[in-house]
Amino acid sequence: MNDLLYLDDLKVGDTFKTDTHALDLDQITSFAQQFDPQPFHLDEAAATHSIFGGLAASGWHTAAVTMRLLVTSGPRLAGGIVGAGGELAWKAPTRPGDVLHAESEVIEVTPSRSRPDRGVVVMRSNTLNQRGVVVQSMTATLMVPRRPTSR
Amino acid sequence: MNDLLYLDDLKVGDTFKTDTHALDLDQITSFAQQFDPQPFHLDEAAATHSIFGGLAASGWHTAAVTMRLLVTSGPRLAGGIVGAGGELAWKAPTRPGDVLHAESEVIEVTPSRSRPDRGVVVMRSNTLNQRGVVVQSMTATLMVPRRPTSR
Repeated sequence: MNDLLYLDDLKVGDTFKTDTHALDLDQITSFAQQFDPQPFHLDEAAATHSIFGGLAASGWHTAAVTMRLLVTSGPRLAGGIVGAGGELAWKAPTRPGDVLHAESEVIEVTPSRSRPDRGVVVMRSNTLNQRGVVVQSMTATLMVPRRPTSR
Repeated sequence: MNDLLYLDDLKVGDTFKTDTHALDLDQITSFAQQFDPQPFHLDEAAATHSIFGGLAASGWHTAAVTMRLLVTSGPRLAGGIVGAGGELAWKAPTRPGDVLHAESEVIEVTPSRSRPDRGVVVMRSNTLNQRGVVVQSMTATLMVPRRPTSR
């Protein structure tokens, strides 16, 4: 467990790749019933005539699965993966049967001026399906602790 | 059911307010187990010593609940609430017992040049707790159909 990453360990251009998560129809409709109950996320027939041209996962489901992938098999940041926010773009629909993974790259590393024990890392995480299509692109601002001995 | 909103019905400055959703510990830990299994979302004792200073909902849970509020009691957009992406900022922790609602404002309305049947609406949706604290601010780009008779 010595491989926790502190701000001091990260540099622009560092990349990380997660494991995969297979999304099935049950997961998609279960999430949608709870958080995004719209016909194109719940019903194949209704979805066919929607802007998605077929049943698609809620974008928030894709985002949540991406978070799971990052937390369970992404960069092992000291302090955990704690985001202050970011930008999100859904570039292609996520479909039942899709197998997703995330590929991340460090874009910025900025030590805090006012808080010497931490800093901010901007990380772009693309979520790809089994055909290599980017279904979601996220650029997140993460709070990352500095290595205690470097203070 | 004649109150569906088309692009032509929306103008900058229009506001919408949703119903409320009460978040309890079970919902928070259940979401976190599935999508964001980090100690500060799962365990009160561990959370006390985290950056959150106590158990907090996953930001993605706040986002998902916000989406539910918008879909079930937000603007009744023709075609549904379909986002291409946007910006997200988590401004304060969401805690067990918080009662959330969303307040939205139309920021931009732009008919598509290439697709005369639709356009883009930029909508800012703040998610507030029972004390009026903004816990999340989201600025989303939504695809909205034009009223068919206006074509």
